[in-house]
Formats: sequence, C-alpha cells, structure tokens
Amino acid sequence: MLEMFNAKSVAVIGASETKGKIGYDLMKSLLNYYKGKIVPINPKGGEVMGLTAYKSIKEHGPVDLAVIVIPSHLIPTTVEECGETGIKNIVVISAGFKEVDQEGARLENQLVEICKEYNIKLVGPNCLGVMDTYNNMNASFSSDIAHKGKISFMTQSGAIMAAILDYADKKNIGFSRIVSLGNKAVINENDCMKDFMEDENTEVITAYLEGIVDGPGFIDACRRASQKKPVLVIKSGTTSKGSEAVSSHTGTIAGSDSAYEAAFSQCGIIRVNSLDEMMDYSSALALSPLPNGKKIAIITNAGGPAIMTTDAAIKAGLEMAELTTETKARLNEGLPDTASVKNPVDVLGDASPERYAFTLETVLEDPNVDGVIYLVTPQSVTEPEGIAQVAIDHTKKTEKPILCSFFGGTRFEGAEKLLAAEQVPNYLYPKRAVKSMKTLSDYTLIRKQEYPKSPEFDADKNLVKNIIEDAREKGKHTLGLESLDILKAYGIPTVGTAITTNLEETVKAAEKIGYPLVMKIVSPQISHKSDVGGIKLNLTSAEEVKVAYEDMMMNIPLKEPEADLEGVQLQKMLTGGTEVIIGMVQDPTFGSMLMFGLGGIYVEVLEDVNFAIAPVNEMEAKDMIRKIRTHELLEGVRGAKPKDVDSIVDIILRISQLVTDFPEINEFEINPLMVFDEGDGALAVDMRLMLKEGDKSDLLQSSPRSTSLKTKC
Amino acid sequence: MLEMFNAKSVAVIGASETKGKIGYDLMKSLLNYYKGKIVPINPKGGEVMGLTAYKSIKEHGPVDLAVIVIPSHLIPTTVEECGETGIKNIVVISAGFKEVDQEGARLENQLVEICKEYNIKLVGPNCLGVMDTYNNMNASFSSDIAHKGKISFMTQSGAIMAAILDYADKKNIGFSRIVSLGNKAVINENDCMKDFMEDENTEVITAYLEGIVDGPGFIDACRRASQKKPVLVIKSGTTSKGSEAVSSHTGTIAGSDSAYEAAFSQCGIIRVNSLDEMMDYSSALALSPLPNGKKIAIITNAGGPAIMTTDAAIKAGLEMAELTTETKARLNEGLPDTASVKNPVDVLGDASPERYAFTLETVLEDPNVDGVIYLVTPQSVTEPEGIAQVAIDHTKKTEKPILCSFFGGTRFEGAEKLLAAEQVPNYLYPKRAVKSMKTLSDYTLIRKQEYPKSPEFDADKNLVKNIIEDAREKGKHTLGLESLDILKAYGIPTVGTAITTNLEETVKAAEKIGYPLVMKIVSPQISHKSDVGGIKLNLTSAEEVKVAYEDMMMNIPLKEPEADLEGVQLQKMLTGGTEVIIGMVQDPTFGSMLMFGLGGIYVEVLEDVNFAIAPVNEMEAKDMIRKIRTHELLEGVRGAKPKDVDSIVDIILRISQLVTDFPEINEFEINPLMVFDEGDGALAVDMRLMLKEGDKSDLLQSSPRSTSLKTKC
Repeated sequence: MLEMFNAKSVAVIGASETKGKIGYDLMKSLLNYYKGKIVPINPKGGEVMGLTAYKSIKEHGPVDLAVIVIPSHLIPTTVEECGETGIKNIVVISAGFKEVDQEGARLENQLVEICKEYNIKLVGPNCLGVMDTYNNMNASFSSDIAHKGKISFMTQSGAIMAAILDYADKKNIGFSRIVSLGNKAVINENDCMKDFMEDENTEVITAYLEGIVDGPGFIDACRRASQKKPVLVIKSGTTSKGSEAVSSHTGTIAGSDSAYEAAFSQCGIIRVNSLDEMMDYSSALALSPLPNGKKIAIITNAGGPAIMTTDAAIKAGLEMAELTTETKARLNEGLPDTASVKNPVDVLGDASPERYAFTLETVLEDPNVDGVIYLVTPQSVTEPEGIAQVAIDHTKKTEKPILCSFFGGTRFEGAEKLLAAEQVPNYLYPKRAVKSMKTLSDYTLIRKQEYPKSPEFDADKNLVKNIIEDAREKGKHTLGLESLDILKAYGIPTVGTAITTNLEETVKAAEKIGYPLVMKIVSPQISHKSDVGGIKLNLTSAEEVKVAYEDMMMNIPLKEPEADLEGVQLQKMLTGGTEVIIGMVQDPTFGSMLMFGLGGIYVEVLEDVNFAIAPVNEMEAKDMIRKIRTHELLEGVRGAKPKDVDSIVDIILRISQLVTDFPEINEFEINPLMVFDEGDGALAVDMRLMLKEGDKSDLLQSSPRSTSLKTKC
Repeated sequence: MLEMFNAKSVAVIGASETKGKIGYDLMKSLLNYYKGKIVPINPKGGEVMGLTAYKSIKEHGPVDLAVIVIPSHLIPTTVEECGETGIKNIVVISAGFKEVDQEGARLENQLVEICKEYNIKLVGPNCLGVMDTYNNMNASFSSDIAHKGKISFMTQSGAIMAAILDYADKKNIGFSRIVSLGNKAVINENDCMKDFMEDENTEVITAYLEGIVDGPGFIDACRRASQKKPVLVIKSGTTSKGSEAVSSHTGTIAGSDSAYEAAFSQCGIIRVNSLDEMMDYSSALALSPLPNGKKIAIITNAGGPAIMTTDAAIKAGLEMAELTTETKARLNEGLPDTASVKNPVDVLGDASPERYAFTLETVLEDPNVDGVIYLVTPQSVTEPEGIAQVAIDHTKKTEKPILCSFFGGTRFEGAEKLLAAEQVPNYLYPKRAVKSMKTLSDYTLIRKQEYPKSPEFDADKNLVKNIIEDAREKGKHTLGLESLDILKAYGIPTVGTAITTNLEETVKAAEKIGYPLVMKIVSPQISHKSDVGGIKLNLTSAEEVKVAYEDMMMNIPLKEPEADLEGVQLQKMLTGGTEVIIGMVQDPTFGSMLMFGLGGIYVEVLEDVNFAIAPVNEMEAKDMIRKIRTHELLEGVRGAKPKDVDSIVDIILRISQLVTDFPEINEFEINPLMVFDEGDGALAVDMRLMLKEGDKSDLLQSSPRSTSLKTKC
C-alpha cells in the first residue's frame, strides 16, 4: 500500500503566492478540496494563501506527504531534509532530471540513493502529481479533482492524465486514485499495481505505460491484481521492432511487442490499444456486474442497427443467446404481432418505455441470457428519457450486465445525461457496447484464472555448466549440434548423432547409433554440402558407411581443394515426423522469452508462432502450441494421425527450466524438433545456443525471477 | 439522375390534419422548409394546413413528385392514377408489402408492373422518404431536414437514417441527398449510386446496405462513381456463412461475405464496418483536400499522446514523414530548446496559439509532408479556442489535409464547437483522426484506379458446349478428370492423361503420353486406391506399364472382390511443381466468383485464398495471387526458384472467360494446378466442374453481366 494516498497532512515545498508558478497551482489544487492539514514551505516564511509558511520542512517537522516543486538542483538536499525529518512519502513534480541530460540523471541517482537510505516512497520526478478522490486530495497541478469513482489510473504521460481528466469530467466518469508516474525513479508501476489492488475504493485498475521497469515483478503483481480486479493496460510505442542483431529465427521474428503481448496474456491483463477502448471498457467494468458467460441478448427498436450489432457481437466473439421457448411465448404474448421475439428482440419503432420495460424484464429472466445490449434509435414517437429510466431501474435490480447504446444525437442528449448521472454504461455506437460486453465476459474468465507452478525436472546442471564454461574459455559464443548434451542433461530426447574424424571411429559410431543414417561432411568452408557430394542419405550398413566416408574423403578435395575436412557428422535418419521449432530470446524487459512454431515455411513465411515469458507452466506451454494458426496440422489433417503434442509440451517445459536456470543463455533454438505420431515422442535434431557476451562471473547466477515467479499466487 | 430530388411541386397523397398520422408529419416536414408547391391529396377535399386539398391526384393533375402514405391495399390503384396523370416520380412510405406476407408481395409486384408501364421511378415502399437539402425538400417523416452539406446517404434501414440524422444534427455534419430505400421495388442502390455520382452538391457517397439487388450492375455503377467521388459502404449481415451444400474447397471456404469483400475491392468502394467509421471518414472526405501520399506529420503539445498516435499511424499503414533539414532548422529556430523538431513535432505543454501557428505553417510547407494530424491536449495553460482558430485559418489556405484531435472533454467544448462550425474535421481520439487520414490517402489511390477490359482468348466454345450438353443428357452434373478437354478448349495446359479399359489401349496411351507415368485403378467402389495396390508410381517403360496393369487386374479382385474395375487412369508423373488451386463458385448476388490459393494445407487449414468476381482483368488476376499471405512461396523462398506466376495469371484469365461464357457452370475447380519454375509454365492435373441443376434451355445463354462489365468505364 502507498500510504501517501491517505495523507492527513501535506507539505508543499515551494508553495507560492505568485500566479503562474506551479507552487501556486498546487496550493490551489489542495486548498480547493483537501480537508487535511496543508503546510506551505517557502524560504521566505510568512504566509501563503492565508496559511503559515515554514522556511524549511525541518522547521515544521514531519507530515504524511511532501510535494516538491522547487528547481531540480535543490531537490536532493530537500529530500534528504525530509528524510531526516522522518517523512516517508514524497511527490517530486519538478522536471530537470534524467529526461533532460547527464547532469539530470546524476541528480536522479542521488534521489534514488537518498530514498533508499531513508526508506522514502517517492513518486516522480517530472510528473503531474497524485490524487485520491476519497481523501479529497488533489496533490497535482491539474486544477480540478476527478469525480469520485471506482477506477484507478496510473500514467507515464502527464498529458494523458490531463486529457483523461477533462474527458471524464464531461462524461461523468469517476476515479479513485490517479498517479502521474513521471520518471519512476523510486515508485513504479509495480508499486501502484499493488496499491490499487489493495485500495478498497478501486474496482478497476487502468494504466498507460510506455515501458516497464521490472518485467518479472510486473507479471507477478498483475497476476495477483487481476484475480481481484480487472487490469487494463495501454502499452504504447508498440510498432518499433527490436533492432539488436539476432541470429536465430526466434530472434528475427520476435519484435519488442511480442514480449509485452505474451507477458500481458500470461498475467491476466486486458490489453487495450487506445484511450477510447480504455474508457469504454473501464466504465463497463466499474459499473456493471460480470456476466456468467458470453451469450447476449439484444433488445432494439429497429432492425438495421440490430443486424449491425449482431454482426459486431459475432465478430467480437460473443454469442447470440437462444431464448427459451417460455421466454419467446411470454414475449409473443406481450409484444405486438409484428415484433420479433427471436434474439435480437425487435420491440418496433413505436416502442414505449413500458414495452421496453416488459421486454427487458422478460429477457433478463431467461437463463440462457448472460447480458443485454439495450439498443435505442430515435424514431418519431420514441421517448428517450423514459426508455433510459427503464434501463436505470433494471440495472439496480439485476445481476446481469445491461449495456446501453442510445444511438442518435440531439434528441438523446437528455437520456445520455440521465444514464451518466445514474451510472449506467451507455455507448453512442452499438459496436462499442458490444466490445465492452466482450471485455466483461473476458474478465469473467480472467478472474477464474489460476497460475500454477512450473514443474521441476531433475537436470544435470553441472554438465551444462561445464559445457558453457568450456565454450567461454575457448571464446566460443555459439554452440551447435556438438552440444546436444545440453539437451540430454535436461531430459530432452535427441536424435542419435556423432561427429567423427576417422574411418574407424565413424563405423563404430554408426553401429552405435543404428541404421538408416545420414552422413554429412564437417567443414567450415563448405556451406552447400550437397553440391560437393557432402551429404549421403539412407546408409543402411557398416559397409555403406565405409564407402560413403571414403568417397567423401577422396572426392570432395578434388572439388574443394581449399576446404579443411574436419570429419563427418552421422545422424539417425528420421522419417514421418513433423518439424517444429522451440526457441528463446532474451527480452530486455521480461527476460527469457520462449517461442513455439511449426518449422520451415510456417515460421519463415507465415511467422506463425507464439511467445511466452519463461518460466512457463503446463497450461501456458499448451497454449503456446494451441494458439498457432496452423495448429490443425498437429491434430492430424488430411487423414494424417495426430502428432505427439504431449512431448512438445514436455520439451517446452524443460527448455523453460533450462533457460531459467542459465540466464547467461542469450538465444536458443531447437530447429527442427521432429514430432512423431501420438505416443511416439519427439526428437531434437539440431540446436543453436548463443551465450551472452559477458563476464564468466555471470555463470550460474540465476535471475531472481526464476524463483519469484514459481510461487503460486 | 433521379429527377425527384429537383421536384418543384410535391403532392402528398394521404395528407392529413390529424396529429399522429404519417400524412400529418409529412405535410409538416415539407411545409417547414420546402419552397416549391405542396399539393395535399385527401379524399375529403377541403383544406389541409391551409392548403387546398384535392380529392384525387387526377383532380389536380401532374406534379414533379408524389409521396404516398395511404394504406397499402389502395396503393396500386393510386400509383396507376399517378401514371395516367403523367407523374414520373413517386415515394411510397406506407408499409404492408413484401416485408409482411404473400399478399403484400403480390401488391408489391403489382406496383412494379405499373411503374414499368408508366416508366415511373418509385422509391420504397416501406421507407422513411427522401431529402434534398439544396432543394429544401424534406419528403420524409423525419421532422427536421438535415443540414446542408456534401455527403449523400442511402440506407436500407429507416432507423439508421433517423439515428444518423440526429447524430449529424448534434455534430453539425451536413448532407446533400438522403434516400431511405425501403423494399427497393423499383429504385435500388444502383439508381441512387448513379444519381449521387451526378449530383453536383454531392462530394461523398455513403450507403448502408443489407443486400444488393443487381450485383454486376452495382459493380459497374460503383466503378464509375468511385473515380469521381469516394463511395463508403456499410454492408451489414456479414457474419453468416452461406448454408448451401457445396462440394469443392472453393465452395467450402467462400462465405457470403467473401463475394462482397471481393466485389467492393474490385470497384473502388471504401468498405466501413460501423457507423462511427462512416461518419469519421465521410466528414474527412467531405471537408478535406486529398493528400498526395501517405506521409504524415504529427504536431502535438504532449509526448504520450504523440507516441500513441504514431503507433496508430504505423498500424493503419501510414508513414511518418521525414522532415527536411530545412524544416527542422526553421523549427529549431522558432521553437523552445526542449521542443522536439523531429516528427512528431512536440511544441510542448505550454504551447500558445502562435507557437502552434508557426509550427503548422512550417510543417505544411515541407514537401515531404502529405498531411498533418493536429493534436492538442488540455494542459494548464492551453488556449483551446485560439489553437482551434489556427487550424481553421490554415485549413482555408492549404491544399494538404489537416485533421484535428482535440483530445479532452469539458475544457475543449468551445474549441469543438468552433471547429464544427467552421467545418474543420476534428476527432476526440487521435486514432480516429489517423484512420480518417488513412482513408483520405486510400481514396487518393482509388481515384486513380483504372478498370481495363478483360482479355478475350480464342476458345473452342462448341467443344465445351458439347461436353456439357452430353453430360446433361446423361443426367450427369459433376464432371471430373475425363473432361479435361474443357480446359484444353480454353487453351489451359493440362497434364497428359488417359483413361483406358484394356491392356493394349493402356500401353498405346502410355507411349503417347510419355514417361514417367502414374497408373491408378478406376473403380467407383474403391476410394483408398493405395490400400489395395491401385496406384503405381514412376512407370518408366511400356514393359513396366504392362506389368503394373496386369498386377492390378489380377490382385485387386482378390482384395476387393465386389469392386467393378472399369479401367485405369494414366497420368504423366510430375516433379518439382507447386500445387495451387483455381476455383469458382456462383454467388447469388455477384455471379461467378473466382478463388485462388496454394494447394493442400494452405487452402484446407490456413484458408489462405483470395476471391474476385469474374470476369477479371489482368491486374485483378495478379492481385488475387499477390494478396495471399503465403505469396512469398511463389516468389521463391529458402533458395527455391520463383514459380511461373505469369502462367497462373494467364490461366485465371482463361478460367474467368470460361465461367463467364458458361453461366450454367455452378462450381468449378482446378485442383491441383502444378506450377513450375519461372518460364516453365503450369499444368492442370485434375478438375471438377458442377453444373447447375437446371433446364437444358439455360445452355449458352450468357449472363448480361459478361458483356456489361467488359466495357471500360
């Protein structure tokens, strides 16, 4: 919890009587609403706006919250004084920190250090301030406090706070707490997430974020929060692709947004892409009960808009409720002959408030109906206020959501005001009511979501550690097929493989792996092996292996005299499997991110892959597989047998553990993993592993995330 | 042109002084605004609202437009009287026709016949009426006439007309002509499309449609219209899939919406999915000049909203303009140090109207900028009206579009009113300004679109006619491989194939086709040929053919004693090609619809196909291929050579001609067409053709469309 929101006394450090100064605006903002003690601090002392001003915070002594609006270079000293005075909560509104230059960054680091020393919770710097409507506290330089309501909002953009407040004022949308995060030097989105989750006045958590300070911590906080309250997040800056050099398919496909998309869906965040969606959905979530399912009924006084609304509902993923025979009979009895009693229920253009009331009541009682879209168009005899009142009355009585769409303009102004005043969600366009209903039903599912622990496999960590250390010592950062033992150490089945350097070894290895075999030349200078006769397929005996080996060693030098022939690679020849890829890249925010996709053109052309932040649990691993577009190919299509998806799930979980255990792995890919028919397992055929170009001392220092995320929450 | 909009005299048949009657509302609607002559017709005669009423239209004589509001059963006689009196334009508002029952449908047919006889243009029945704001004519029972403006609107839903009028009134959006289409007994969307295209007061054409009476005519009308004015269409009822039984992949995949999607894109329609989009885009199109390209600049007084707007722009398919060095230098000089002079140009939170003006002017002069998004958030010192006035002033001077987003609420009410009054497009949410800008730039391209004729190939139509007649006589509706001659008749290369019934024939045919060959057993009882040894691959000589034939005839009867062995099918064995499908289904609205996709799982699992209404021209055929998601596979991926796309284009064009020449073909599919490397052509390997289950007399009666669409327009 952030105690600052409950502050009973607030000091304004930099309070001023000079109009145009932030210290003036801020005093005004507080004086207008706040019922606690306001303490102006000004080096001149005297009075500010009729209140005794103190020359320094030390002169006054502790307060619950200090808001600082003085020039940035003075701030570290002031924060230190606050610390010495015992103040634990500070908001720094002033700009001039890391957002401007190196010197600012230095100042900001000083702030962070001082806050650590004194255990100070500091919002900002470079922000608009904070609000708590239930404490009547507007410690921001937005002149008006928000209306009281159930939504809390944190924002990384002060301008968006200003815009949303102005918009919400017009639409009568209420808030509980608002935080302008600023530079997030100390308090960040994770702290606010935890605070909003605990705040009893908050029922919906919303956020506008441009970046996230601590990805794993954010996932953890959101998983906890979203089980209690809906969490809606706008993450902006989504269109840029990561520009870092990458050397795997996984790295090529993963844009910076893939990790956000994966993380958000793994922790129950409702991601929204624009402020209109955020306001639409958060209003519905704040004001409406949750539907039990996604079966909706539409009540309408006109056919055309009902068709469009039905289209929109189906597209959004809602279902049209099948009304019971009883409901239809009752509607038939009570409505005119030409009315339609199938869903959408068309109560006709001349529908009175009474007819709407009868219909709404009847439809709400239908057990097949999870929620109602209440559609009204301005026909010549329509009584907008009366029909609005019907929605208001029923909203108070029912446990199902009623979302209105009064779809008109001038004639509906009165009805709109009435619905806003009575806190019934209303949307100009039916499509927006539909999408809000879909969000309600999505949240019904999110709320039930559990986040079980990832399984723990026995693994030979020391073996992996040795392989990695050995590679580092040799200055080698990319490991390939020769390191399949890494997979074996984590219990991942690999195809029989050997790299050999003479004939005797080769034959021995062939006998050990078993037939049929593929032999490939190993030579750093030869990239198109088949062009020089460097690939021999389907070798079925020791004799054939011998012939193949001798052929290569004799004939390849004739074609490629410059090439070093280091040996040959033998591999069991596989038939009948389906190629898939399991990969991992490091995301700067969320850490190890896994990827799954079908191999070959599916990944290269279709980019038909899914991502998830590691460590994943079984459900998440299954989701990664289930949610590719070409998932049917694994289920068995065109008469083919279903593939062994369980094996893929198991291998994803093992890879998840591997990359979590070894954060020094920067990129990783099994490509291909051959998956056989159900029950027949899967085999890793090739792998590629890139190490971070770092100090050896990183080795085996697991990231804190690997444990923090495994606790069930 | 529909003359009714220019009517200088209007008779109201069914005029009434009784409040609550439509004949009363209608008289009021006219009297409020109309400057022409109003003639009330009422069987009682006397006066209606101070005007002399006539007992019948005959008693009065001709008028330019008659609006009929009497009960439906009286209407045919009345329309006949109108015809006899020489009236050419009628609006029937009354309901009670085909929308209610059989008797109503009979009445409506009578209307159609009478209108044909007297050459009457009739709007309705069962509609809200028509408006022409420039003629001050409100011949509808909407009480208020729309504001004058540049948008014309036709709608198949009266309720949507009512809602849009009410909304537009509030937002000060103006219209030229409005038509409530009703049952479309005589005048339909095609007539209105032509009228709106010609109307000099109309600059944007909008339509809400639930169905289209004459698909080919609609395509033709829209191609012509969209080259002159933007055409925005909502087609509702899009989520239902065609339920007719179908027997090809093409038929399975093609939903009822595929044809609309294809047709709309082939004739320059801007398809919109909701009324908010329609109002947003049509306002921009009505009020703004078109941009030359899609490079936009964003001017903003806040960073966060600018990031979101940039995201939205990139997602929408716009590009961020690269400002010239000169522009940046000028901005650097005129703006505060901390302002950002890269696009988005951030003029900072304290930006005055003057600063906005300087920036807007500078950015508009940049040759790299095609249009400007003018973003304003309510910061503490922001002067909304002044900043709005800057946009207004520059809109009058520039030839580039400026779309505003005043993104706030209460504080922006004045600015919003000012922008609306001065007809500058303004959007609450930046995303909607962005999408409107994208629509402007889309229309820039549509306007330049040409629709060249489809090519005409020499084809042996008689051969095809004979094959089809022959099949029909035998009661056969599905033709397969045995009818590959149909393809040959249209110059489509087919794989060498023969069906033979004895050994001698088989060997002879094999020699003729050439080796290697595939042999398959032909037996109606055997569906899994390979299970019984009924497929022999890679036959390379007459001897192997003989052995294979004898093996099948001896051994298959042992496994399938009940099966009739009708013979064998020989086919040239192909290697190295890529499988594609070219198909066709009949759409009830638009006629022959072609489909293209890659074969196998691409069509079955990914449904990665494109549709186009036949006949197609070369550009459209290329688009069908280019727009599949997996198009890269034809370009050559993973080191493969590019495929012979020109051959596919050629074959699509020939199929287009075939299905246009023979409208009795109900479904058609070449599956697979094997496409080889560039320059090596393509071969049809199998086909399936289903005939309509109709009368023989249909044969060779080409649809009217096949010619009408070929005229260049």
